Amino acid sequence: MFDPVEKLKEFIRHPSVSTDSRCGEGMRGAREFVSGLLASMGFAVEVVPTGLHPIVFAQRGGDPSWPHIVIYGHYDVQPADPLNLWTTPPFDPQIRGNRIYGRGAADNKGPLLTNIAAVARLLEKDPGIHLRISFLIEGEEEMGSPSFAGFLEKYQDRLKQADMVFLSDTALPNERQVVITCGLRGLALFDLHVTGPRGDLHSGLHGGVLRNPIQALAEICASLHTPDGRVNVPGFYDGVLEALPWERAELKKLESDEKRYAEFLGIDTFHTPPGFTPFEAIRFLPTLEFNGISGGYEGEGTKTVIPSTAFAKISCRLVPDQKPARIKELVIRTIRERTPSGVSLRFVDQHQGDPYVVVPPGRPNTPAGQSPVLARAFRAAETAVTEVWGSPPIYLREGGSVPIIADIKRVTGLDSLMIGLFLPEDNLHAPNESFNLDVMSRGISTAQRMLAAVATA
Amino acid sequence: MFDPVEKLKEFIRHPSVSTDSRCGEGMRGAREFVSGLLASMGFAVEVVPTGLHPIVFAQRGGDPSWPHIVIYGHYDVQPADPLNLWTTPPFDPQIRGNRIYGRGAADNKGPLLTNIAAVARLLEKDPGIHLRISFLIEGEEEMGSPSFAGFLEKYQDRLKQADMVFLSDTALPNERQVVITCGLRGLALFDLHVTGPRGDLHSGLHGGVLRNPIQALAEICASLHTPDGRVNVPGFYDGVLEALPWERAELKKLESDEKRYAEFLGIDTFHTPPGFTPFEAIRFLPTLEFNGISGGYEGEGTKTVIPSTAFAKISCRLVPDQKPARIKELVIRTIRERTPSGVSLRFVDQHQGDPYVVVPPGRPNTPAGQSPVLARAFRAAETAVTEVWGSPPIYLREGGSVPIIADIKRVTGLDSLMIGLFLPEDNLHAPNESFNLDVMSRGISTAQRMLAAVATA
Repeated sequence: MFDPVEKLKEFIRHPSVSTDSRCGEGMRGAREFVSGLLASMGFAVEVVPTGLHPIVFAQRGGDPSWPHIVIYGHYDVQPADPLNLWTTPPFDPQIRGNRIYGRGAADNKGPLLTNIAAVARLLEKDPGIHLRISFLIEGEEEMGSPSFAGFLEKYQDRLKQADMVFLSDTALPNERQVVITCGLRGLALFDLHVTGPRGDLHSGLHGGVLRNPIQALAEICASLHTPDGRVNVPGFYDGVLEALPWERAELKKLESDEKRYAEFLGIDTFHTPPGFTPFEAIRFLPTLEFNGISGGYEGEGTKTVIPSTAFAKISCRLVPDQKPARIKELVIRTIRERTPSGVSLRFVDQHQGDPYVVVPPGRPNTPAGQSPVLARAFRAAETAVTEVWGSPPIYLREGGSVPIIADIKRVTGLDSLMIGLFLPEDNLHAPNESFNLDVMSRGISTAQRMLAAVATA
Repeated sequence: MFDPVEKLKEFIRHPSVSTDSRCGEGMRGAREFVSGLLASMGFAVEVVPTGLHPIVFAQRGGDPSWPHIVIYGHYDVQPADPLNLWTTPPFDPQIRGNRIYGRGAADNKGPLLTNIAAVARLLEKDPGIHLRISFLIEGEEEMGSPSFAGFLEKYQDRLKQADMVFLSDTALPNERQVVITCGLRGLALFDLHVTGPRGDLHSGLHGGVLRNPIQALAEICASLHTPDGRVNVPGFYDGVLEALPWERAELKKLESDEKRYAEFLGIDTFHTPPGFTPFEAIRFLPTLEFNGISGGYEGEGTKTVIPSTAFAKISCRLVPDQKPARIKELVIRTIRERTPSGVSLRFVDQHQGDPYVVVPPGRPNTPAGQSPVLARAFRAAETAVTEVWGSPPIYLREGGSVPIIADIKRVTGLDSLMIGLFLPEDNLHAPNESFNLDVMSRGISTAQRMLAAVATA
């Protein structure tokens, strides 16, 4: 059995930023790392080419009567900038205290390696275990998984023979409390470009006669929320389902200290729509956020131009039953209606994904035909979490998005068991990302027990 | 006599971007170029150190009874970015048609060299001419001349012995019509930083609970204009003097074709405060513009963060009698009042400058004690322009700013004769800046005649 921490260091050292065209070498390195590791565990590894970053599809077959679990993960990571805010370099993993620091440590290299290590231990302990396992590890998650739907279509016959998906790409509220994620927000992303004059203009010679594109962009962006924090786009909330009573009850079990959360975020005051606590708003409401804005001169000192153009990067997080295409249509229509004279708009479509929910067994709204293997896995996970962590998991939707989970459900019918492993303080998508090694160790034990219990005797 | 075009090429080749700390070599090169040229013309050259970029102060003395003209210019240029929009490299001057292309060609290397060449011709033709000339050429104009006021204080006794200032750092409306600039807008610049959470946050895990700094910045920026295009800051227009009848009459002489101007700018529609044409708004009204905006992820693809911080670069152009310090105070107070909860503000002060007016001789509001040399120079300029360009100049305020002109007036009492030499299509402060060589040639003749007429017999 390999040392999971040493392996994680090796994994992090490959700078696998999928959105950065200069990271081809790092992508290849990360991919070969997981392929090699799974092959060494006896898996039959296929590296499936896509338009961009290949998918690693590795299988441990067996008798068709054995349960078949697909374990999902991704080997790509977010960009590491701004580099100057990292204490140690993002791709030179360092252990400080009980944490390992590096880009991708928590999203998703650490949690993925946790589940690979759990499988390695399971197979070492019981090489003949009656369980089929397929690893499905993509390299385009951080860019919206553009190739994944095509892969699913192509491999759907093989995937439909599986019983369920298992993954760890969601969050824990704190290091004592496991959350089994029962819902994910969807995504709808696009860029908005606002253009005024044909080129940058001298703000003295021409200032005062035309609409500045930055002013127009600011007016549009400012109009997209009401003062009380709701998204100010007609029809935006039409598809939103209210949370069910059992979901609200589960949320009450969460240790939710608003003061501590505000301190963690570094803010004085929350800003949530009326009637929702921050913990509810994240899970039960959609958002519209500006992820970036840019225009004109952004360097040191001054340059007195009226810029020709300015842009904002906009993303909506969606909840059931909002549809990404419909939401984009509504937001874009609203932006067009609110655009002042003197500027033109251009929209650059980015990726999107449906929201997702899975209902644990035994709830009032559990679907009648739920997979027995999935039901067994949920129950086994509850037992394993209780034994390893000392208290049972709670079942919550979360604010993040793993759009391929909804895609898998749509194409193959498979539902997912999602056991969160990263913590709020892990700094996902931000400088000084890290992963808690105690969580990793407990995560390995949990997954190993859950998988063992799902296998047939 | 040197070839002015070859000398201009040499001048442009020095990348003298005063705001860019990497351009020390280019600044030194440009400075040594003008110093050397003036020394070769017999001037006594002093290179006066400042906190940053030295000032070239070159004198041709003479009998104290001779008229004494200070010729102002600057050897620094704007940053050249975005570089990808230049047809040829900004510091590799190229002649295409009757234009020379390069950063600084029109602002201010071409016009400055025009006046140096005029002096060279004048001295070649009449080496004993009864005229004292001082060149005052700074290297910090494009960063707001931070050292210039200190220089003026220190050298005020020598400068007060002069009679007037002459410069060409203003615009022509077209290549047939000379404008003598009788007013300049002032400037008040600062950066506004808006900060929310302590670091960038994952927009899924935390989206929906806090105010996004980009949203807050957009709301602030959007609030700073009314829908009809006025600056929406209480008290902003309090000091604004109405244009006098003779100024409006001069403006009527300007060939002002709104359609052609809109085509030049590349806009469908103007956006001016009610009651002002674009040509009036530029000259008689103040502005508030956003020169840049930045925050969050601005790269390719997507990065779903809620940024910790965002900023805008704001500049106001001011008209008599607005005071820059008072305007900054009003705008900053208004921004503070309109800032939503959940974010904090930081202001970075940039430079500022007073607006300026000079009244030609013989107008109803010409000051009683106007310098006789200045009055003679204005009349000589009218004659020279009429002879060289075929029609008399018109006397207009312009929208640009040369803040040191107001500083010179305040410290030394000297007024300025400003003969515009750059054209709207010269792309000042923008990619593909160029200077019209026919204008340069006529500018040399005009300045030579004007200076000859000012000299005593």
